[in-house]
Amino acid sequence: MNWKSEISVAQDRIAGHAQVTPVIESRIPGYPIDLKLEHMQHTGSFKARGAFNTLLSMNVPQAGVVAASGGNHGAAAAYAAQTLGYPAKIFVPELAGPSKIALIRQTGADLSVVSGEYANALTQAQAYEAETGAMQIHAYDAPATVAGQGTCFAEWDAQDLQADTVLVAVGGGGLIAGALAWFGDTRKVVAVEPETSCALNAALQAGKPIDVSVSGIAANALGARRIGQICFDLAQGMNSVLVSDDAIADAQKALWQAHRILVEPAGATALAALTSGVYQPGPGERVAVLVCGANIAPDPFGA
Amino acid sequence: MNWKSEISVAQDRIAGHAQVTPVIESRIPGYPIDLKLEHMQHTGSFKARGAFNTLLSMNVPQAGVVAASGGNHGAAAAYAAQTLGYPAKIFVPELAGPSKIALIRQTGADLSVVSGEYANALTQAQAYEAETGAMQIHAYDAPATVAGQGTCFAEWDAQDLQADTVLVAVGGGGLIAGALAWFGDTRKVVAVEPETSCALNAALQAGKPIDVSVSGIAANALGARRIGQICFDLAQGMNSVLVSDDAIADAQKALWQAHRILVEPAGATALAALTSGVYQPGPGERVAVLVCGANIAPDPFGA
Repeated sequence: MNWKSEISVAQDRIAGHAQVTPVIESRIPGYPIDLKLEHMQHTGSFKARGAFNTLLSMNVPQAGVVAASGGNHGAAAAYAAQTLGYPAKIFVPELAGPSKIALIRQTGADLSVVSGEYANALTQAQAYEAETGAMQIHAYDAPATVAGQGTCFAEWDAQDLQADTVLVAVGGGGLIAGALAWFGDTRKVVAVEPETSCALNAALQAGKPIDVSVSGIAANALGARRIGQICFDLAQGMNSVLVSDDAIADAQKALWQAHRILVEPAGATALAALTSGVYQPGPGERVAVLVCGANIAPDPFGA
Repeated sequence: MNWKSEISVAQDRIAGHAQVTPVIESRIPGYPIDLKLEHMQHTGSFKARGAFNTLLSMNVPQAGVVAASGGNHGAAAAYAAQTLGYPAKIFVPELAGPSKIALIRQTGADLSVVSGEYANALTQAQAYEAETGAMQIHAYDAPATVAGQGTCFAEWDAQDLQADTVLVAVGGGGLIAGALAWFGDTRKVVAVEPETSCALNAALQAGKPIDVSVSGIAANALGARRIGQICFDLAQGMNSVLVSDDAIADAQKALWQAHRILVEPAGATALAALTSGVYQPGPGERVAVLVCGANIAPDPFGA
């Protein structure tokens, strides 16, 4: 796969549908870093990029689209489907929580809330796909999804990103696969996962994707039980670090206090690697952090 | 006064102290507009620009600085004083509310909470100035304050602002004076005030600054009893509109839903002129909105 080319094509394809998200300089860790505010993307996370790229690059059947999601991908898939005029069926686990469930409902999608964790929602979405012929938009382990998420990093390069190193939070691995696919050898990419939801770290240690248990404050966004194969293949030899829930909560608070950026725990997870000192830049190493999701619960306006 | 020159000098002076705030494109009113996210400035409002410009352009006496504030200016003055190593005494009215009061306390400033509205805090700050020799940082009606706020618009121009028209919320008038001073005849500036706190609109109608009563959801940021003279002089013949509290609340919610931007009512007031239809752009008129303050109460992290 020529990922650079796929991502460039995706960038043209989703232009006008995805929000161009801004970048700022921050000194939150005590030294200058760059932040890309991708939590300001439509529906509050980077997921809209992959959803639009998928829907705009494939023939959508009459049965429409189906997605399984911890919440953010479902909202993005439903939003993209609504924008483009397709019916959408979304399965979310209960742990998506009321604000993400309300967000999906607002799009007009047909929503089923499934007991348990993300993997259960995925099983039901696959059954629905088989039964109806609806097109599955995978949350992370499909080329069109990864290429779509990669546009975030292509856009950042075009915004004159100077960093040597980019820190990205990891759930199922679609976003970081997009980063690895776009940057190749041009920048170092660091994977940051919660200690309690670390499918990529476990896979890198085991030498293959393995099932992990998922829990903790970021689980409804980062709680994939197994890393995607596309991500795993791209991630060989990469730098992977883990952060505690307390470190994530501290980084979340720091984003509000320094910049009035309000994000969900997943959105502060990559930054937590710096604020906790789990990742320490070397001398002269310029670091950048992707802020990836804002769908905090409860929603400040009550959902 | 050569305002363009004053503002350019101020911009160099405060570089590295003020945050460069990002801009995004939005379709919240149903057509494309530009937003400058100045609520991401240090201490959550544009006020840090004027505070730094004042402290960096004058000889600060041993007694330090004093400021009266509805909350945002006090936080900015206290933050700038702390950053530059000066003692700060801040007077705020009770209606500043717990989150702004907590914000000022965090800077280490000596804080007095005064009963009633902003004008009472100003009276006490002036008495303190006379008694101690501390330097008053006026919230809006001083040239160094106005030039500092004007840097926001100089920065926006350098970010390739394309708009014909810029909408700005007005309290005492420091920010919009900065806009008028910087843009001169190059762009149309529209003043937006709450119906319940409209010192500029009343002054323009009366032909001179007059006292107004202040109330409503944005009063702790926009509730100046009388427009500043500098603003009034610059504002002759300008376009001035009023918005309801309901329109402000709707715009505040729209900013969260569309972009995960969480602001206080004052921060959504300029946008409310578009979302309510009080200001309707003409054919081909490109409009931009300054988002000016984020210090919502209660603070999402509990203050």
